[in-house]
Amino acid sequence: MNLLEERIQRDGVVKEGGVLKVDSFLNHQMDIALFRWMAEEWKRRFAGVPVSKILTIEASGIGIAAIAGECFSVPVVFAKKAKSINLDGGMYTAEVESFTHKNKNQILVSKKFLAPEDQVLILDDFLANGCALQGLISVVTAAGATVAGIGIAIEKGFQPGGQVIRSLGYRLESLAIVEEMDPARGSIRFRPQPQG
Amino acid sequence: MNLLEERIQRDGVVKEGGVLKVDSFLNHQMDIALFRWMAEEWKRRFAGVPVSKILTIEASGIGIAAIAGECFSVPVVFAKKAKSINLDGGMYTAEVESFTHKNKNQILVSKKFLAPEDQVLILDDFLANGCALQGLISVVTAAGATVAGIGIAIEKGFQPGGQVIRSLGYRLESLAIVEEMDPARGSIRFRPQPQG
Repeated sequence: MNLLEERIQRDGVVKEGGVLKVDSFLNHQMDIALFRWMAEEWKRRFAGVPVSKILTIEASGIGIAAIAGECFSVPVVFAKKAKSINLDGGMYTAEVESFTHKNKNQILVSKKFLAPEDQVLILDDFLANGCALQGLISVVTAAGATVAGIGIAIEKGFQPGGQVIRSLGYRLESLAIVEEMDPARGSIRFRPQPQG
Repeated sequence: MNLLEERIQRDGVVKEGGVLKVDSFLNHQMDIALFRWMAEEWKRRFAGVPVSKILTIEASGIGIAAIAGECFSVPVVFAKKAKSINLDGGMYTAEVESFTHKNKNQILVSKKFLAPEDQVLILDDFLANGCALQGLISVVTAAGATVAGIGIAIEKGFQPGGQVIRSLGYRLESLAIVEEMDPARGSIRFRPQPQG
């Protein structure tokens, strides 16, 4: 097991309905040393892939993407989820449905921050049904930019998002892929990963 | 001028109604090298102050706080703005009004992540009327923890938040304090800062 898988095994809490709580280290309290490991692991996996910008989505992607931005030495853009009075002018938009919150959001990225020449690494904390990710991909595509790759912290392998994204031909690097979870026993089984 | 002030002067856009757009480097696209400078500047200003945890609020505080978390080697907690099905159990809550979005939000921090022995450094990108900050302070106080200090990227010196917070006796370190902005001329005047 890698560092993230070990941490999920130790501190993740399996709930009914396919919910995995990792709020003690990933998406409410953030273990920045773990984020640094994740960023370096993506850097290793995407070695040789040109990346000019990182794109993520608020809120829980931001911390991970910020640390990765330092590691890749590129600017980080986070897509916003609601219309803001501070966001005027041209925006790329997409509609996404949240698995966690059971609601629909418009995601917004200012046209100023994605250019056709950009090689965009998309990062996020979770991949479940893949809606947020498809929204981010459509924003990159709308800008005429290239999706250099996609990095996910935790993929729920028992939900369709990962397969959909890989079928579309994108290079998707999930650092932990949960194959199966049992809320009764609190057990988590991971898909085997390539060793670094 | 320090690095942040220079950047605001160069890339900030002054709008009507006391709005300062800094979305090209602070709260939509993020310049992580600048965030690193900010984190190290807070580290310098709070030298000798014990800090066990950093607390911020989603969304635009998260990137800054993540980099600062690495600099201070402490975990980072971000307060959430809406009730989530993944946040069960005991929560500290406070009601805050957003200057930017003109709406009220409940902010939530899980009781698991703030303990009475915590020395909390509160960080955020903006300080205007101080409502978000007062919410974060009340959460720390409710936990019986100590506010070790408060670090702000951009304080709007022409709004009352900074004075209120300083009057309450908190040590507030704002890296750029905007004293005056003129949307017609696009000019920005900063309050003089102690030199490092």
